[in-house]
Amino acid sequence: MTHSSLLVVGSVALDDIDGPFGRHPDILGGSASFAATAASFFTLGKGAVKLLAVVGDDFPAAHVEFLQGRGVELSGLERVKGKTFRWSGRYSDDLTARATLDTQLGVFAGFQPKLGDAHRACDFLFLGNIDPTLQIGVLEQCRRPKLVACDTIQLWIEHKPDELRRMLGRVDLLIVNDEEARMIAGVHNVVKAATAIRALGPKGVVVKRGDSGAVLFYEGGVFAAPAYPLEEVRDPTGAGDTFAGGFMGYLTRAGDVTPDSIKHAMIYGSVLASYCVEDFSLDRMRTLQLKEIAQRYRAFYELTHFEHIAL
Amino acid sequence: MTHSSLLVVGSVALDDIDGPFGRHPDILGGSASFAATAASFFTLGKGAVKLLAVVGDDFPAAHVEFLQGRGVELSGLERVKGKTFRWSGRYSDDLTARATLDTQLGVFAGFQPKLGDAHRACDFLFLGNIDPTLQIGVLEQCRRPKLVACDTIQLWIEHKPDELRRMLGRVDLLIVNDEEARMIAGVHNVVKAATAIRALGPKGVVVKRGDSGAVLFYEGGVFAAPAYPLEEVRDPTGAGDTFAGGFMGYLTRAGDVTPDSIKHAMIYGSVLASYCVEDFSLDRMRTLQLKEIAQRYRAFYELTHFEHIAL
Repeated sequence: MTHSSLLVVGSVALDDIDGPFGRHPDILGGSASFAATAASFFTLGKGAVKLLAVVGDDFPAAHVEFLQGRGVELSGLERVKGKTFRWSGRYSDDLTARATLDTQLGVFAGFQPKLGDAHRACDFLFLGNIDPTLQIGVLEQCRRPKLVACDTIQLWIEHKPDELRRMLGRVDLLIVNDEEARMIAGVHNVVKAATAIRALGPKGVVVKRGDSGAVLFYEGGVFAAPAYPLEEVRDPTGAGDTFAGGFMGYLTRAGDVTPDSIKHAMIYGSVLASYCVEDFSLDRMRTLQLKEIAQRYRAFYELTHFEHIAL
Repeated sequence: MTHSSLLVVGSVALDDIDGPFGRHPDILGGSASFAATAASFFTLGKGAVKLLAVVGDDFPAAHVEFLQGRGVELSGLERVKGKTFRWSGRYSDDLTARATLDTQLGVFAGFQPKLGDAHRACDFLFLGNIDPTLQIGVLEQCRRPKLVACDTIQLWIEHKPDELRRMLGRVDLLIVNDEEARMIAGVHNVVKAATAIRALGPKGVVVKRGDSGAVLFYEGGVFAAPAYPLEEVRDPTGAGDTFAGGFMGYLTRAGDVTPDSIKHAMIYGSVLASYCVEDFSLDRMRTLQLKEIAQRYRAFYELTHFEHIAL
């Protein structure tokens, strides 16, 4: 039996994070780093997760080695002359708000995703929050994946609304936070927003709500995954991308997109995100074990499970 | 077999609510009105829900008739000379924020709960968000209920912290919103706040989070009930008290406080709250049917249920 593969396209970045747990400069970040790493815990077979991104010649070899160590296939990680994409942000003391202090696109400004044969043949595709024009470019190079999921951000919702709509018309699933869902649909109520977005193309919409969990709206109805109640969150950066990566990684392992698999993917995505925020950058992923993932999945089950009884 | 009884102590008020769906003056409100009405859907036997509160001589007979029609036992609804407690508030357009415009305590300022024999013998007791000194007064008059739950508000947390702590030392369950839990414990993280509150006395803490659902922290661990994804919310007033009333009403029906019953109570409380916000005041409760409660309980089950699988 051939195992399924997942292509993750997005940013690989160097972050500078400030907040109640101190300043952490020059740490590994970027949507593709978080998503590919989270997915790598689920996929079967080395190289089943393929990453497509660009970094500059300042990108530390240690980060490349970390991703390789997770079994992520890096033939699509272009290294070009110039600076790696850098983002710096500061969180409020209670971690509920964050401000972007600086963004330096660097070599990311010229990113043009070029897919190799193995990329084009991927069974599952996750398009991180890059320019929708680039997302469409990736879609045009791909053969038909079993499921295409995408993310987007305020920048593209505001400045590339037409391209975003064209892109949404070609994907199966949109994974965004609640504010992004509201902005895309132009309506405050999240249920109405999800309905409006599904009318644009995606069969499903996952609305990420931070410490309120994630909700999936799809043809089968609605499915809610809670957030895991954590005693300490150190760094929320990358939680959403980690959710998406865990979600897609689980689907890639399952090899199908049945409603049951999608629900399990919602929970496994939540499990990975709950670990991600326990430490800075991808540091918690460095020590995370499959056994811990299974334990927390069980904890999610106990957190939500009740018997169906008649009154 | 004798059915269990529930005593609800709190406020019965006249509200004036303004918001995106227009102004609604002189409508029935108050913590005890919402909680007793929600509970009345579950209890077996007329008069199983007993209400203890005070109103002025301006309180409309129609509201008394509504509560009586729901089978609520009203021998403890004192009617004294003066004005009924009045609260007026205005919601933001997206219903996420509300401002209190005016509070007139009226006869509520002199409220001294006096329990009759049937009240003292109650099996379950819900203490709405009145002055903790009065809550303690009720506890001192009661024989030993199977479960005592209480609510409180910012006013008492700030101005009667010692009385609040004494009261918390004598109850089984605290049902508050997340901001109140944080204020009582003096810590932002809700998990830590619940642990700190449980160290003050209550075996369990339910943290209500509005459209993010409710979370129970208890000796058995944590249980999360999502909020039902509604397309339209008209008036959130009373949702928390309705949750508490549905919760306590279900326990009163079950007649026990096993972990399973507590979980079912969390869901039934959420079901009732989800209906409450669909209309102003207690208006949705006027038409609500047991069949609809059962349907939405089923919807909550489908919203959260997934199989436990091994990776």
